[in-house]
Formats: sequence, structure tokens, C-alpha cells
Amino acid sequence: MEIEHPYLMFLGDAADQLAAKTAQGIVHWRRDWCVGQLRLDDCDADLGLPEMSITDAAAAGVRTLVIGVANRGGVIGESWIATILAAIDAGMDVASGLHARIADIPEVAAAAAENDARLFDVRHPTETFDVGTGARRPGKRLLTVGTDCSVGKMFAALAVEQEMSGRAMDCDFRATGQTGIFIAGSGVSVDAVVSDFISGATEWLAPANEPEHWDLIEGQGSLFHPSYAGVTMGLVHGAQPDALILCHEPTRTHMRGLPHQPLPDIGDCMEGHLSAARLTNPDVACVGIAINTSVMENDAARLELLQQLTDRFEIPAVDPVREGMAPIVDNMIGG
Amino acid sequence: MEIEHPYLMFLGDAADQLAAKTAQGIVHWRRDWCVGQLRLDDCDADLGLPEMSITDAAAAGVRTLVIGVANRGGVIGESWIATILAAIDAGMDVASGLHARIADIPEVAAAAAENDARLFDVRHPTETFDVGTGARRPGKRLLTVGTDCSVGKMFAALAVEQEMSGRAMDCDFRATGQTGIFIAGSGVSVDAVVSDFISGATEWLAPANEPEHWDLIEGQGSLFHPSYAGVTMGLVHGAQPDALILCHEPTRTHMRGLPHQPLPDIGDCMEGHLSAARLTNPDVACVGIAINTSVMENDAARLELLQQLTDRFEIPAVDPVREGMAPIVDNMIGG
Repeated sequence: MEIEHPYLMFLGDAADQLAAKTAQGIVHWRRDWCVGQLRLDDCDADLGLPEMSITDAAAAGVRTLVIGVANRGGVIGESWIATILAAIDAGMDVASGLHARIADIPEVAAAAAENDARLFDVRHPTETFDVGTGARRPGKRLLTVGTDCSVGKMFAALAVEQEMSGRAMDCDFRATGQTGIFIAGSGVSVDAVVSDFISGATEWLAPANEPEHWDLIEGQGSLFHPSYAGVTMGLVHGAQPDALILCHEPTRTHMRGLPHQPLPDIGDCMEGHLSAARLTNPDVACVGIAINTSVMENDAARLELLQQLTDRFEIPAVDPVREGMAPIVDNMIGG
Repeated sequence: MEIEHPYLMFLGDAADQLAAKTAQGIVHWRRDWCVGQLRLDDCDADLGLPEMSITDAAAAGVRTLVIGVANRGGVIGESWIATILAAIDAGMDVASGLHARIADIPEVAAAAAENDARLFDVRHPTETFDVGTGARRPGKRLLTVGTDCSVGKMFAALAVEQEMSGRAMDCDFRATGQTGIFIAGSGVSVDAVVSDFISGATEWLAPANEPEHWDLIEGQGSLFHPSYAGVTMGLVHGAQPDALILCHEPTRTHMRGLPHQPLPDIGDCMEGHLSAARLTNPDVACVGIAINTSVMENDAARLELLQQLTDRFEIPAVDPVREGMAPIVDNMIGG
């Protein structure tokens, strides 16, 4: 069930740039796949891609219309449907990251059936998974974990993929959330899987592989986030990781969405995730710390923080955006 | 959404006594609710209840036909449908613990709609849950946890309910699995909840209450079982427990269903669950150890094991079946 590229990025009537966050992530990591954008009249987001009609896009060989935009309540705008139908009519598949399913819109479902088009609702897994077993499997796996939600776990995994690919190392990015799935072309939204099957879905996503192959698995949530730690736990056990990268945003004052919930100490958080991971891989190690310093304006303070963390934990601490992942990949290979 | 009693226990064509395990659990804990059993000709299970036809049961005031029997593949036997339809026709609700939904059988759904009967598929939650928050709420809560699956977590919670009720303490058993739901008359099969909502479902199940009221929450899985630890983690965080009881079966040689997976050390397991629970209740304590000694024939060895555990952890270690829960409830009150 691969989502085929090239993509036409559909922004609908997005109210602002933030509403197009998913689409921006796709363009950042897969610029080559994104040949153009299609915006309705009252759209206030811009990906900086060529404007394209459905007809232009079809002529340019686009395979999939990607709805990478948030709308109030995660629903599909009435005004979007004509564009979706036109894309199907022009021979494209349609992939959506919204909560509401495009496959549930009767006229869209009918058009897709008639044109043999595929509809991907990437937040809603369609596979059936087995219960996880924790049995050891060959191949190497990295999982990004975090002190909180939204601290850069997807970015860190993709930055490792970029660094490893540059070194011609054998690796795959494994997506566990909607933006990641568009970037990989496949994956599983693990937070939408029935809870009995979280670790099983992860075992399916990152299966046995060649001994030197690396699966680079996008983490979700945090074992220290009271809303989502169950998802994280299943992901940690199912990933059976050889390596963890701990992701952190140093200016947070509380867990995302929960003003009453303090952030964990980085050391406690690292040990908590390592301890859980040891259940299915006793040799797991934390190979690096990825710090999202995007809101730190003082560069001296920023570098001092990274140095402190490097000294304290004796592993590389970097901002993947500014320093890149080379030091952490060096450590993974050396370790 | 309470399942109303009295119950008529339907055993269908159960192949052996093990197939009626759920029904047996219900009869054990709620004998007063179970007025009779209904068995088809080739049934080889027996609950020791009076045999009753649908007509007899309706005359005796039965409110719900309970399908507390396992079948190959969790499906509904063809031969059962006539009985289910007769029960609906006689004014009863129907509650099933099978994987397949009785509400998905068109003739059953139609009969229920016509007769205003309720169909409960207790393995399939019908409520919509919010994401958990971990915000502190009043009332006291106990959660049973375990070194493995199927070590007596439901039994331990119900044994505490029995002991507390005998002391006229204010408490409720909160069910998280199918047998428990029949026993409580309500609850949530947490392993069937979408993984983003595990802790939220648990917060819903055991809500804010009077300061001295105890919710006695049935645990599921184990943080040390690689198949199901995600479910357990969400349950631990959502329960926000003041007290844990650790359940253990001392003759297991490996985790249930996983020959490659060793059992955790009891001390590591206790500390692992306490550590996770502290995220939403820093004052949580382990108040007792419930050992399932049903297969230990040597009584001296059995008592020696309980004494060793009591000495090592300085909390009561009992078999809830043989010793009862009085020592643990004493410790909960004193602590």
C-alpha cells in the first residue's frame, strides 16, 4: 500500500501557514516528490511550490493528490470536494491526513471505485495486525523517543536517514504518524491502532531485515506523557531498538497540553525509555540527544547547553537542524 | 449502559468446562444474579445452576441472556441464534463476550430493534473517550498489576471488593475485561480501545469520587509483557492509583504465550509498575502481593513462599483464594 509520487499538494482554504504544517513537512523532506500546489481562492498558506491546476498536474505526471492540511475539527471542507473529484477523474489517487475519512464521502468513494483510484486515509490503519511477540529479529533498529510530544522525533529520525543515505548506508525511515507516512509513502498511524496491537503493528512496520540494515523508526509521545505513554510503550517494545535518540525541547515549562504536568528530568527520561526497551532488546543504548533549539536566540547559551548534555551523558547532543546528525551517526557506527 | 440482572447463563454447545470460563467467573462472584443456565443438546459444560428454558427464565424475571462461553474463533454458533432470538422475543437484553458481535447478525439486530432490547458486545467499547490528562482527581483508587497475563488480577480486585464490602467500606469494582464487565454490569474492555485513548478510557471508568471512596480497578497485562504492555501503561497512568497489588503465579517458567520471554523478578516488576504509576500519583504504594498458589500442592512450600515475600517486601503476601484479602485491606487502611 505505497502512496505513489509525484504529489500535488492540495491546501484547500487553509486559514494560515500553521494549518499547512503537514504539507510543509512533506515538502521539506521530499521536495522532489512535490511538483506543485493547488490552493482555493481564500487560502492563506503557501508552500512556495508552482501553482498547478488538476489538468496541469495530470499532464506533469502527478500520481497522488495529497491533502496535507488541517481544518477546524479535522473535517473535509465542502468546497474541497470538487477538486478531489477532479483529481480522481484525472486518474490520480487521493491521500488525506485528516481525522474524517475521505473514503466515507459517498461521491468520493463512488468516483474512486469507478476510476480504480486508491483513497488513503493515513490516520486510519487498514491493515490487520497480529499481537506482538517480542521475539528477536535480525536487522538494526533505531527509535527516536522524547521528553514530550512534539519535540522533533520525526525530524530526528529523518535527519538520521538523510545522514546515513549520504554515506550510502542501507536504511529505511519507518513512519508512525500522518506526516511521516506521506514522507515515507507508507507506514502506520500507531496511535489509531487498537491498543492490544500496538507492539504487533510496530513489529509489522519494522520487520526482520539484513543484519546491517537500519530501520529508523519515528517515535510517538513519551513514556512520561500521561495521555499517550501507552502508545509509546507499545512502540518501544515492538521496535526492539538497538539504539535510541532522546529528543527534547529545552524551553518547555510543562508537558504539551497539560499545564499541571512537569517535564521529566532528561536523565530520568533516558533511563525510563532504556529500561522499557531492554525488555525486548537487552543491548539497547542511547546513542545521542537531539535538542530542538529553534526558539533559543542566544547562540552561546545554546552551545553551552549542548556541551553540558554531551559532558553529562557522554554521547553527542546536537540540534539536528543546525549541527546535523553526523556526530550521532558516528556514535551509532562506533558503538 | 448497565447490563441488568438477573442473568440467564447461556452455554450453547460448549465443548468443555474451559469454554465456559467466563460464565464460571460470573457465577463465582455474582451467584445471586445468575438464576439459571440454558444448554444446547451437545453442551459439555455445567455451571451447576438450575436448567431453564427461555420461557421459564422470563417468568423468573431474567433481564439479560448472557453469552459467557468461548467458541472456536470467537464466533457465534449458528445453532445459538434461535435461542438468542427467543430471549429477545421474551423481552430480555442479550450480552455477549465473544469477539464477533451479536449486533452484527442482521436478524438479531432487527429483532432487538423491534423489541426495544439492548445488545451488549462487551469486548467492543461503544463509548467515545477523551484523551487522558493525568490531572489529579479525588477519591482513592487501587489497581491490580501483575508479573504476567492471567495471574489473578481480576480475582484479586474482586476479593478486595468482597473484603471491603464485608467491612461496609465505600467501594466499587471497576472492570476492564469481558468477565469483569459481566460481574460489574458495566466497564470498558481497555485492550479494544484505540491506543490514543487508553488512559482517557481509564479516567472515564474510575472518575472523581468521594475522598474516602475506593475504586478497585481490574488490571490487564503487565508492563513486562511485550505483547500488551502498552495497554497496561495507559491503565496505570489513567488509574492514578493510590495503591497497587502485585499479582503473581509462582510456577510460570516464561511469559504467557511467549516461550522466549522470561518472567521478571518480582522486585523489579513491583518497582517498574510503581515508577510508572508515580507519573500521575507520586504517593502510590504497593500494599500487598497476591500469589496464585492453586497449582502448589505442598502446603509447607506454599506458606514458606508467602512468608519469604512478606519478609522481603514488608507488605502482606497472600493467596486471595486461601488466605483472603483481610491482611492487605488492613495494610491499605493503615497505610
